[in-house]
Amino acid sequence: MTQSAHKLEISTRGQGLYECTSTIDEWVRRQKMQTGLLTVFCRHTSASLLIQENADPTVRHDIKAYFDHLAPEDGPYEHDSEGPDDMPAHLKTALTQVQLSIPLIHGSLVLGTWQGIYLFEHRVRPHRREIVLHLIGE
Amino acid sequence: MTQSAHKLEISTRGQGLYECTSTIDEWVRRQKMQTGLLTVFCRHTSASLLIQENADPTVRHDIKAYFDHLAPEDGPYEHDSEGPDDMPAHLKTALTQVQLSIPLIHGSLVLGTWQGIYLFEHRVRPHRREIVLHLIGE
Amino acid sequence: MTQSAHKLEISTRGQGLYECTSTIDEWVRRQKMQTGLLTVFCRHTSASLLIQENADPTVRHDIKAYFDHLAPEDGPYEHDSEGPDDMPAHLKTALTQVQLSIPLIHGSLVLGTWQGIYLFEHRVRPHRREIVLHLIGE
Repeated sequence: MTQSAHKLEISTRGQGLYECTSTIDEWVRRQKMQTGLLTVFCRHTSASLLIQENADPTVRHDIKAYFDHLAPEDGPYEHDSEGPDDMPAHLKTALTQVQLSIPLIHGSLVLGTWQGIYLFEHRVRPHRREIVLHLIGE
Repeated sequence: MTQSAHKLEISTRGQGLYECTSTIDEWVRRQKMQTGLLTVFCRHTSASLLIQENADPTVRHDIKAYFDHLAPEDGPYEHDSEGPDDMPAHLKTALTQVQLSIPLIHGSLVLGTWQGIYLFEHRVRPHRREIVLHLIGE
Repeated sequence: MTQSAHKLEISTRGQGLYECTSTIDEWVRRQKMQTGLLTVFCRHTSASLLIQENADPTVRHDIKAYFDHLAPEDGPYEHDSEGPDDMPAHLKTALTQVQLSIPLIHGSLVLGTWQGIYLFEHRVRPHRREIVLHLIGE
């Protein structure tokens, strides 16, 4: 049984879903394990992770619009010193996840056909986001 | 240290919470491990996983009704080609989880007394859902 | 490769976010591992876990207020036998998480600078909450 770890940097250009499935998948394949558990961890409180449909792009559009509606910029927030998009970013992060774990079986992640891994950026300005990958298995 | 993996199929008959605690627990016990980590992974984007109260059934009723209200069928969605329940299903999945990990200690999952593991089906029509179980430990 | 497990008890004094980062971090350091995966599991259905900003306390205030608004006490719930805060507590738990996994690299959890681990208590009365820690690695 062995472990591998890697830090992934993703540059975002404003709010939205950034797919990182193939980047993660390629790193996992290079570790040459057959069975294991991959953990994806986002080191931020205003960006998060989501597994969602990778086919029709209108799904991603609707997800972004929905969370903008659910955690609006004009809410009655006390925390407003970092801009109107900051507190909604914390709320959207709380409503989704900063960590995902995906089993690896027969050398492949067990993602379903329509599942893609996305970084969900909640801030308006460009950011450099750090994602940690950890794989344990053999 | 060893690993076990298993694919579970669950047939759903419309929206709602389907308990799978005992099925998962029985598989875990058959692996004869004392200490480890179980990961439950749902391979879909319109069904998800939830750990919730396993006692009073009105809790499950209220959870379903709440998510129907929070992500309604008549929202302003662009993605509507797969039926009015499809985009709400993606949103409900985003608001809950497709992955849960539960430690195993002294041969038992550490679920609390009132915690059950549920598949949360968000589509109206019957579906066959795939859940992957992965256990690492000894 | 080895494993460690520990049960943490946290006494809560009403609704809100209780930081437990340093308690968890100290236990992890005592296990003397360099690389691994920590899993934090909350054994309840009316309290949950959240990784959130550990700097400005108004963020925690706004998170609590937001979830109180999103899952209000006066909702149309069938389940009301355990008090008006009980069903909202189940919903807030469903909207957040009962499990978090965090990679350990070079002997430290890979939490970002602003990330703290919080127990999110959703009940009004004081409770004793059980959190299970599981660490696998070497």
